[in-house]
Amino acid sequence: MSLDELQTLRARIRELRHLDAAIGLLSWDEETYLPDGARRERGEQLATLEGVRHRVLCSDAFGDLAESAALAASDDPLVPGEIERLRRLRRIALALPDDLVRAFAEARSRALAAWERARRDDDFDCFAPALAELVRLVRERAQALARSCELYDALLDEYEPGMTRARLEPVLDIVGARLVPLIGDLAARTQAAAEPLPVARYGDAAQVELCRQLLVDMGFDFARGRLDRSTHPFTLMAGGSDIRLTIRVFEDNPLSALFATLHEGGHGLYDQGFAPELDGTLLADAPGMGIHESQSRFWENHVGRRESFWVYRLPLLQAAFPGVLDGWTAERFVRAINVVRLGVNRVEADEATYNLHILLRYRLELALVSGALSIADLPGAWNELSEQLLGVRPRNAREGCLQDVHWALGAVGYFPSYLIGNLYAAQLVETHTDGHDLDGALARGDLAPTTAWLRRHVHAHGHRRSADEIVTSATGRGLDPEPFFRTLLRRFDAVR
Amino acid sequence: MSLDELQTLRARIRELRHLDAAIGLLSWDEETYLPDGARRERGEQLATLEGVRHRVLCSDAFGDLAESAALAASDDPLVPGEIERLRRLRRIALALPDDLVRAFAEARSRALAAWERARRDDDFDCFAPALAELVRLVRERAQALARSCELYDALLDEYEPGMTRARLEPVLDIVGARLVPLIGDLAARTQAAAEPLPVARYGDAAQVELCRQLLVDMGFDFARGRLDRSTHPFTLMAGGSDIRLTIRVFEDNPLSALFATLHEGGHGLYDQGFAPELDGTLLADAPGMGIHESQSRFWENHVGRRESFWVYRLPLLQAAFPGVLDGWTAERFVRAINVVRLGVNRVEADEATYNLHILLRYRLELALVSGALSIADLPGAWNELSEQLLGVRPRNAREGCLQDVHWALGAVGYFPSYLIGNLYAAQLVETHTDGHDLDGALARGDLAPTTAWLRRHVHAHGHRRSADEIVTSATGRGLDPEPFFRTLLRRFDAVR
Repeated sequence: MSLDELQTLRARIRELRHLDAAIGLLSWDEETYLPDGARRERGEQLATLEGVRHRVLCSDAFGDLAESAALAASDDPLVPGEIERLRRLRRIALALPDDLVRAFAEARSRALAAWERARRDDDFDCFAPALAELVRLVRERAQALARSCELYDALLDEYEPGMTRARLEPVLDIVGARLVPLIGDLAARTQAAAEPLPVARYGDAAQVELCRQLLVDMGFDFARGRLDRSTHPFTLMAGGSDIRLTIRVFEDNPLSALFATLHEGGHGLYDQGFAPELDGTLLADAPGMGIHESQSRFWENHVGRRESFWVYRLPLLQAAFPGVLDGWTAERFVRAINVVRLGVNRVEADEATYNLHILLRYRLELALVSGALSIADLPGAWNELSEQLLGVRPRNAREGCLQDVHWALGAVGYFPSYLIGNLYAAQLVETHTDGHDLDGALARGDLAPTTAWLRRHVHAHGHRRSADEIVTSATGRGLDPEPFFRTLLRRFDAVR
Repeated sequence: MSLDELQTLRARIRELRHLDAAIGLLSWDEETYLPDGARRERGEQLATLEGVRHRVLCSDAFGDLAESAALAASDDPLVPGEIERLRRLRRIALALPDDLVRAFAEARSRALAAWERARRDDDFDCFAPALAELVRLVRERAQALARSCELYDALLDEYEPGMTRARLEPVLDIVGARLVPLIGDLAARTQAAAEPLPVARYGDAAQVELCRQLLVDMGFDFARGRLDRSTHPFTLMAGGSDIRLTIRVFEDNPLSALFATLHEGGHGLYDQGFAPELDGTLLADAPGMGIHESQSRFWENHVGRRESFWVYRLPLLQAAFPGVLDGWTAERFVRAINVVRLGVNRVEADEATYNLHILLRYRLELALVSGALSIADLPGAWNELSEQLLGVRPRNAREGCLQDVHWALGAVGYFPSYLIGNLYAAQLVETHTDGHDLDGALARGDLAPTTAWLRRHVHAHGHRRSADEIVTSATGRGLDPEPFFRTLLRRFDAVR
C-alpha cells in the first residue's frame, strides 16, 4: 500500500469519525437545547446523517482501501487494529439490507411512540403489536448478522463484541444463584441501620457547583468537555476532544445529581482517556459497552459508596447547604446512601439488586427472540420472574415490563452490558486497591491516583485490545463474578 | 417526470437542507457552547460536512433529476422555482474547481489567523501577504464564476443574486453625495441634545428577561427557536423549525443587548416567516443578504429608534432596573440613543454614518479586485477615504483597515448588502406607515401588526421572488435611496 493510499484511507476514516461526531452533537442538542417544535425535523436530520455515514462506510472505494491496507505491510502499528475494526463495521453495515434498515427504523419509531402512550396509560395492549413487529425485525436483523446458529449472539455482539451466550450464561447463573438468597437479609439490615437524609431545599446552583468541582477533582478536562442538564443523564462524544455529560438536579435530593456525576464522569474520563496517538483513528473508542459501563460503575459504586469518599466530601456538602447536614458524619451518611430495597424498578435499584433486574430482562429477551415467549405473555412472565428473583411483584405493566425504553428502541442484547460492567468494575477496584491505599487517598480528597490507574490500565488502550484482554491484563482474570460478591459483602458487612 | 422521480428529487433536496442544518448547528455550537479545546476538531468536522454537501449537490444523479424535472410539466407550483435555485447552487458549486476550493479554504484560514495577530499587534504587514494571496484567489474565484466581464459582479452575485455594479453604483454615489455634507450638522445637533444614560449596574438576568420578552412581543416563536449568548450576536438556522439567535450582555450598558435583540430578532422573524408550504424546499430562504438585512435594520432602526417604541418600553426598563432611570421620559431616552458621531468604527456607527463606512469598503474592495489598489497601499487609501467620507482619520491600521473580519474570510462583495438592507428597510417602513399608525401601535406595545405586515409582504415569499421583486411589489419601487433620507431626516429633525 502506497503512502498516498494510506493517507486516503486515514482521510476517509477521519470523515467517518466527523460524521459520528456530527450525529453525536445533533443527538446531544436534541436532549439539551433543542426547541420543542423542532423535534420531528431533528429526527429527519439525524436520519440523513446516518444515511450519509452508511454510504461512506459501505462504499466500494473504502472497502478497496481497507483490503489493500490489510494486504500490505505497514510501519504504522495502529493500522492492523484499525483495519480489523473497519472490517467489522463494514461487515455489520453491509450485512443489513437497506429495506431492513428502513423497516427497522420505522418500526422503532412506531414502537417508541406506542411505548410512551402505553406507559402513560398503563396499557400494555397498545404497545404489544408494535413490539411484536419490532421483535420480528430484531430477529431478522440477528439472522442477517449471525455467524453462528445462536441468534442471540448476533445481538449481544453488537454491544459486546466477541461475547457469546455460551460464555455469558454461566456467569449470569452464578450471579442469580448467589444474589437471590442474599438480598432479603441485606435489605433488612441496611434499612434498619439507615436514616433518611434531612428534608430540605438543596439549592440547584449549589448542587451544580458541587458536581462540577467533583468532575474537576476526578480529572475531567473541561477544556475538552461540558456538563449540562437533560431529562435522563448521559455521556456523548461530539468529537474526540469534545465529551459532553449531562445530569439532572432535584432540589429535594442532592444524591441524584451527585451520583449521576460520578456515573457519567466515569464514562467521560474513559472517553477523554484514550492515548493521544489514537486521536482521529477508529481505535479512539471503547471496545464494548460493558467495559464502558465498568467505568461509570467504578466511580458510582466503588468510589461514591465508600465511607472514605464522604470523609472528604461530606464537609463540602455541609458547606454548600448550610445547617442542613449538621451533625452528620461520613459513617451516618454512607449508611443513608447504601440501602438495599426489594423494588420493582431497575433505575432506582441499589448496587445489590441491580444485577437481578438485568438477569430478569436477559431471560425474557432471550425467550422473546427464540420465540419461546409470546408478546402477549410478556407482562405475566415479567411479574412471575420478578417475584422469583426480587421477591416483589409489579402491580401493573407500567411498573413491570413497560418501565424501560430499551426494547421499544429495538435494543435487544444490550441489558447484559450493564451486568458485565458491574462485574468488571468490581474486578478493577479489587486490583486497584491491592497496590493503592484507596481509602486513604479518598479521605484526603485525592482522586488523581485512581484516575491515573484507570487511564493506564483501561482508558489508554482504546480499541487496541478487546474488553476481555484489557480486564485480563489489568486484573489477571477475564469476566469473573467473585470480586463483585466480595466487594458487595465487604461494603454491607460494615453495616451492622 | 414521474411522481417517483419528483419524490426522489424532493428527498435529495431535503437531504441537502438537512446537511445545511447540521452545518448550521455545528457552527452555532462553535460560537456558544463548544469547549475551547475542541476548536480545531470542530473546524475539521465542518469541512467534512461541507465536503459531503458539495458532493451531494454536484452529483450527476442530482443534476439529471433537476434537468428532467425542468423539462417536465408539473402540477406542483413550487417546482420551477426550486429547479431554478438548484441550478444556480449547482452552477456555482460546479464552476469552482476542487483545487481552488481547497486553496481558498486554506488561504482563508491563514488569513484569519494573520488578521487576528495583525489586529492584536496593530501590525498590518503581518496580514499583508496572507491578504494578498487571498485576494488573488478571490479574483480566481470571480473569474470562475463570472458571467460578464465585470469580475466584481460575480462576487456581488453570491450575496445579492442578480445585483450588478452597474445598478448598484449610481445608488451608492447618491448615498455618498448626500450623506457627506449632512453628517457634520447631524453630529453637532444630536450630541448637543443628548445626555448619556445613567452609569449603573444593569443586571444581566434582568437584561436577558427584557430581551426575551421583546422577542415574544415581536412574535418570535420560542417553540421553533432559541436565544443564547455569544461574543458576536448572530442568527442561524439549525433547521426550518429551529432558528437560533444570540446576543451579548454588558452590565454597564443595556442598549447593546436590546438593540442586538431587535436586530437579530428581525433576522429571526424572517427565517420563521416563510410560508408553511415552503417547508423543506429550497424556497424556504431569503433571496439575498440585503433583504435579510432589511429586516434586522427595520426593527433596529425604524422601530427601536422611534420615540413611540420607548413610550411603552421605557417603563419596562425602569421596572427592571429600579431607581436607575427615574425621571427619564421616552423623549429624553430616544435623544440619548439617537446620537450621530463621526467615528472610525463601522460596528459602533450610528444610523446616519453607517452607510459611509460601507461606501468606503465598497470602493476599496473594488479597487483591490481590479488591481487598481495594491495591498501595500490599502492602509493609506483607507485612511484617506475615511477622512473624505467621514471626516475622521484612523490613528492606526487597527482602527482602520484591520477593524473588520470580512476580507480575512475572503468575503469580498458582502459589504454592499448592509447598505442595500438599510435602503430596503427605509422603503418598507415608509410603505408600512402609509396604511398603519405605527407610532400609535408602538406606544401601546403592539408589535403584532408590524410583524404581520412584514410576514405578508416580505417573509412569506421565501425564495419564490427575487429581493427586487419583493421590494418592488411591497413598496412600488426597486432599490431607492430616497426613503432612507426622508426617514433619517424626519428622525433627526425632531432633535432640535
